[in-house]
Amino acid sequence: MRILLINPNLTAAVTESCAAAARAAASQDTEIVPVTGDFGAQIINSRAENAIAAHMVLTLAAQHAASVDAVLLAVSYDTGLYPARELVDIPVVGMTEAALITALMVGARCGLVVFGTPGLYREHVAALGLQDRLAGIRVIQASPATVYSDPDAVHAAVLAAAAHLVDHDDADVVVLCGAAMAGMAAFLQPRATVPLLDGISCAVPLCEMLVRLKLPPATQGSFARAGGRVSRGLDPALAALLAKPAG
Amino acid sequence: MRILLINPNLTAAVTESCAAAARAAASQDTEIVPVTGDFGAQIINSRAENAIAAHMVLTLAAQHAASVDAVLLAVSYDTGLYPARELVDIPVVGMTEAALITALMVGARCGLVVFGTPGLYREHVAALGLQDRLAGIRVIQASPATVYSDPDAVHAAVLAAAAHLVDHDDADVVVLCGAAMAGMAAFLQPRATVPLLDGISCAVPLCEMLVRLKLPPATQGSFARAGGRVSRGLDPALAALLAKPAG
Amino acid sequence: MRILLINPNLTAAVTESCAAAARAAASQDTEIVPVTGDFGAQIINSRAENAIAAHMVLTLAAQHAASVDAVLLAVSYDTGLYPARELVDIPVVGMTEAALITALMVGARCGLVVFGTPGLYREHVAALGLQDRLAGIRVIQASPATVYSDPDAVHAAVLAAAAHLVDHDDADVVVLCGAAMAGMAAFLQPRATVPLLDGISCAVPLCEMLVRLKLPPATQGSFARAGGRVSRGLDPALAALLAKPAG
Amino acid sequence: MRILLINPNLTAAVTESCAAAARAAASQDTEIVPVTGDFGAQIINSRAENAIAAHMVLTLAAQHAASVDAVLLAVSYDTGLYPARELVDIPVVGMTEAALITALMVGARCGLVVFGTPGLYREHVAALGLQDRLAGIRVIQASPATVYSDPDAVHAAVLAAAAHLVDHDDADVVVLCGAAMAGMAAFLQPRATVPLLDGISCAVPLCEMLVRLKLPPATQGSFARAGGRVSRGLDPALAALLAKPAG
Amino acid sequence: MRILLINPNLTAAVTESCAAAARAAASQDTEIVPVTGDFGAQIINSRAENAIAAHMVLTLAAQHAASVDAVLLAVSYDTGLYPARELVDIPVVGMTEAALITALMVGARCGLVVFGTPGLYREHVAALGLQDRLAGIRVIQASPATVYSDPDAVHAAVLAAAAHLVDHDDADVVVLCGAAMAGMAAFLQPRATVPLLDGISCAVPLCEMLVRLKLPPATQGSFARAGGRVSRGLDPALAALLAKPAG
Amino acid sequence: MRILLINPNLTAAVTESCAAAARAAASQDTEIVPVTGDFGAQIINSRAENAIAAHMVLTLAAQHAASVDAVLLAVSYDTGLYPARELVDIPVVGMTEAALITALMVGARCGLVVFGTPGLYREHVAALGLQDRLAGIRVIQASPATVYSDPDAVHAAVLAAAAHLVDHDDADVVVLCGAAMAGMAAFLQPRATVPLLDGISCAVPLCEMLVRLKLPPATQGSFARAGGRVSRGLDPALAALLAKPAG
Repeated sequence: MRILLINPNLTAAVTESCAAAARAAASQDTEIVPVTGDFGAQIINSRAENAIAAHMVLTLAAQHAASVDAVLLAVSYDTGLYPARELVDIPVVGMTEAALITALMVGARCGLVVFGTPGLYREHVAALGLQDRLAGIRVIQASPATVYSDPDAVHAAVLAAAAHLVDHDDADVVVLCGAAMAGMAAFLQPRATVPLLDGISCAVPLCEMLVRLKLPPATQGSFARAGGRVSRGLDPALAALLAKPAG
Repeated sequence: MRILLINPNLTAAVTESCAAAARAAASQDTEIVPVTGDFGAQIINSRAENAIAAHMVLTLAAQHAASVDAVLLAVSYDTGLYPARELVDIPVVGMTEAALITALMVGARCGLVVFGTPGLYREHVAALGLQDRLAGIRVIQASPATVYSDPDAVHAAVLAAAAHLVDHDDADVVVLCGAAMAGMAAFLQPRATVPLLDGISCAVPLCEMLVRLKLPPATQGSFARAGGRVSRGLDPALAALLAKPAG
Repeated sequence: MRILLINPNLTAAVTESCAAAARAAASQDTEIVPVTGDFGAQIINSRAENAIAAHMVLTLAAQHAASVDAVLLAVSYDTGLYPARELVDIPVVGMTEAALITALMVGARCGLVVFGTPGLYREHVAALGLQDRLAGIRVIQASPATVYSDPDAVHAAVLAAAAHLVDHDDADVVVLCGAAMAGMAAFLQPRATVPLLDGISCAVPLCEMLVRLKLPPATQGSFARAGGRVSRGLDPALAALLAKPAG
Repeated sequence: MRILLINPNLTAAVTESCAAAARAAASQDTEIVPVTGDFGAQIINSRAENAIAAHMVLTLAAQHAASVDAVLLAVSYDTGLYPARELVDIPVVGMTEAALITALMVGARCGLVVFGTPGLYREHVAALGLQDRLAGIRVIQASPATVYSDPDAVHAAVLAAAAHLVDHDDADVVVLCGAAMAGMAAFLQPRATVPLLDGISCAVPLCEMLVRLKLPPATQGSFARAGGRVSRGLDPALAALLAKPAG
Repeated sequence: MRILLINPNLTAAVTESCAAAARAAASQDTEIVPVTGDFGAQIINSRAENAIAAHMVLTLAAQHAASVDAVLLAVSYDTGLYPARELVDIPVVGMTEAALITALMVGARCGLVVFGTPGLYREHVAALGLQDRLAGIRVIQASPATVYSDPDAVHAAVLAAAAHLVDHDDADVVVLCGAAMAGMAAFLQPRATVPLLDGISCAVPLCEMLVRLKLPPATQGSFARAGGRVSRGLDPALAALLAKPAG
Repeated sequence: MRILLINPNLTAAVTESCAAAARAAASQDTEIVPVTGDFGAQIINSRAENAIAAHMVLTLAAQHAASVDAVLLAVSYDTGLYPARELVDIPVVGMTEAALITALMVGARCGLVVFGTPGLYREHVAALGLQDRLAGIRVIQASPATVYSDPDAVHAAVLAAAAHLVDHDDADVVVLCGAAMAGMAAFLQPRATVPLLDGISCAVPLCEMLVRLKLPPATQGSFARAGGRVSRGLDPALAALLAKPAG
């Protein structure tokens, strides 16, 4: 099985780090196929940059969908999640969605630890209809870059945020959000009092599961591809996919 | 005052029809500056096409924001609304948002009459946090093109849908959604039992109002521009706007 | 265009201060027609006083509706908003409703700064179905009178409350509620990091907009006047309006 | 124990019919003290008339509170419920509130059968925060007067409405709303498949229960009387109650 | 009238203390019939223990229902509330449900003071659909046993918690949850600024009220007993009740 | 890996049919260990029977947890889900929960097709906090036994129900609920226009995924086992598990 790992940010090193985490989480016969964005903001941290990145995600999905079995969005805002799911005929899973969904099976209330932009996470959780299960969101006051330059400080801040979510917001499980935190959950788990989740580790087995279910694409409903769509100025693969007949 | 009217669909004729409706609704000293998309789907009617169009909206907003006072999104899904609002330092109003907001001041419950894609409207109303005021959504089983080829049939269908929303869903006011229905609300009003609204007519005076309020852009909160952002592969105007320092 | 500005409180000086703010926000050809209550509590600050004031609002609206084009409720609880909207055939806008609605077009989450009675505001926001957009409510621990006796202290308290709403509750925009704060938003704006709104400045252009839309009164739905209603003991204008045939 | 039964409508015969139902539901040592409105609409069936009636309710409550132990609002919209509760130092229960609360202890989902004005009921249920338990509202297409002129037809319509709420909306219990239906629930119960409730029968024992609990009035929170309030033009008893010192 | 008071915990002394509180709240002609669990956890304080106790509640209800007029669940989680209500043909009221319902008639927002396990209370309030009226939950950091060993400390902690709910969460009324707090509300009331409620005192008159209403069991809807059910390994009384024909 | 498949109903044949479906969905190295209830109702179809079955689930989980890696609840109401998750230190997944969670990754809105008892499903979906994603519930008017006696009629009814959910309730994906429908989703998929899911097929890979994640049990929060609990009259394995020290 081949899983396309899309990072619509522009830094291949981050993609690689996510791909490494994905490989660690994958079954033996699963191949991770990482791709990195080539237009848009270097790093997404605003709604505008996120909107541009959704176009990037669709472009990459269209370019590679035919040769893979599922798509994993390795971007903490699950950029372009529903549009991509609608566009391609294979499963699409977002890393934060995956962690939130896993959290549903682990505790009653889930807390999020994030770098910056709590609003984007709050809106995403609400769009997913999962706000009733959200205990709270805590922001780490550090740039993602600090993860590499001063990991101990970041680890301490993440653990403090997780503890706050447990102590004050009654979280039963905590998601560490963001590509920069890939792998950190397992590393910090021994120092936490509740399960810690990260998106990549959850998303890979969920992709595998969906592939195993062999669900056909919908031919009716809001995710059925209309097909035969006329477009202009798009990447040829994306234009071709929109133009492909429905059904 | 100059209002940029953005239609991210690719048909200039539709833009012109919206611009005409906007001019009819505008104050004497307001100039409508219409622009049309040049990449993406010819007509948006899916989540994927809508996501691509958000990039188009941001590009057009960035290209023209410096020479106008406000932005009106002449696209019934209010494509790219929050991203555009975050990106530029002037007011941005979506046509459907405008009608929904106006409806808040007219009745307690608002019904929507739409061409196709009820799911996208439902998700947009929910994202706006206005679902408590939504009486229901009725879909017209006709292509937007029929508006021009068989207007009487479309008018009858729209009135029947509006009547159903009033009779069965307790709507106090009805919004006719979609650029194809621009101007239709006023035309059909004499045959309806509740106020009918269309987005363009509502959005123009709301743009004018926001310009008059002279609110400064936020320098904090989720709509404050981060500034100094690095990007690649974008329209130069969009890249320049992202790169512009904050504050 | 003539806008009736109703203050159901009994202090004409407050009415005048609201009228001055309204005139500052009005278009050149808009006349503000202020009226003050003559029964009820001197100042409304409880549910019981608010209920009595709703009767006052309806009485004043009935007395003056025939000679004006719209009604602006210059009372921070939007006292009698829906009843008045149902009673008269012209637009009715509440000052706090107006600010909340404007806030929808400015940010994702809106904070309120109020003098006392947070419960009444919370219930009003919920009744308007806008609680999903509410970031929080902060109470200024000062009587409205202090606005005149120690304005600097009040200004500092208002700014601190606004900052708290931004820093802790993720507000993108803040409404300063209450007639006593009329005009204060613009004055304090340079010292705030997010847009500040006040109700009167928002309500005037919204009234103007609704008048321009020329929407007919509903003849069906929950805002259609029943007409031909028998009453006793009411102000003659109010009784006459209730008795007027429907349609 | 004496329970003040307030009917803010102006027809003493309706008050008497409610009082008779209340006496049938009362304990042996409970006296029902019925009072009827003397200003406002003859019969409330709009938001405006309801707002005026709230003033009537407060006036009657103020006039009689000192000589009774509790107040029962014998008006199906529970007109002035929270304001009256705040105003007087004794328990206040609304007839529809009482039936809804009783329904909470009888089934999971509650249906309402109403004469006209479903919107007012919907808004009241929402204001009470009980919408999650609401199965639906069915409107009887008959004037309340028909209850007396053609009772069989009304009974058949009420039973059909109740059956529809059970069959289609999964109601476990049904409330018959409105003073005109006082006593009808017990009469029709043998022909229904779920418990039928009417407001008066539920409100009387709830008033008795609250009196037995001897709860003191709040001196803090949103129901604490401010006290020492200045007013003008009000019924002397109402003015005196507002002027009474807090605590 | 006889009210079965079920304590599914295993300590008869706690049952007796609840029965004493119930007798103090009962009408003269009401007899309280207390029963105590004989399997399960000594004291319920987790979801698993609560689930086991629901079986205990049903067993006790089945054993005694034929000889009583109503059932009062004297367990702060209202263990087995809906299942018991469905099983027996007489009214069933939970102690916490009763206090929450009473609170609806006393204030707009209700706070809870609890020993431990806030999650179970939160989930119960949500399952009852009453979360819109919930101001907050404050946990007393003491074991229920401390109520007897150091009552002054517990009283101080309870009052502090109640004050916090009023001051910070805008509670208008506070429920003291848990069998260990039976009787404490009345004792502490003079030192509180809002009404304090305890479940037993509220549940007894509500049971009495429901008995007086003489509502028949539903023969349709989700609370209608299916009847004729085959089972194995259950207490004979419980098996017999499940086997009893419907209707 | 060994997955304990618990059917708290009393018919081993149903357990076997679920186990067969589970084996079909399992990875090669996963062993399914089926167990059947030995007390309670023969078949659960009411809240009371479901409550008793929760005790059965906990008993079976306690008896077998030490020798398996995860627990799958093969009962369509996910009976005892949270209690079991709290009790044992290994993952617990409910079959309907699993299908609902999978549906989150497949479409925006999910419909349920059920045999009888829509109320129990509605309450379960709400308790899971997933009601925002629920398109609707359709009841098949047939006993589960008909699945075996007249499969064609049941298949037609299920497809009609699914089509209704898509056509009228905007479902993007449909879950076939109930052990009797195990395996039916795949069989009917070719005749449906949207993906069909069944609980067992979804639950098995989700169990496998959670086992692979190796999350530790919480030592804090609402799912942390208290430990050291005293009980009486329980199955020895259950008593021992409650008595086991925390941590």
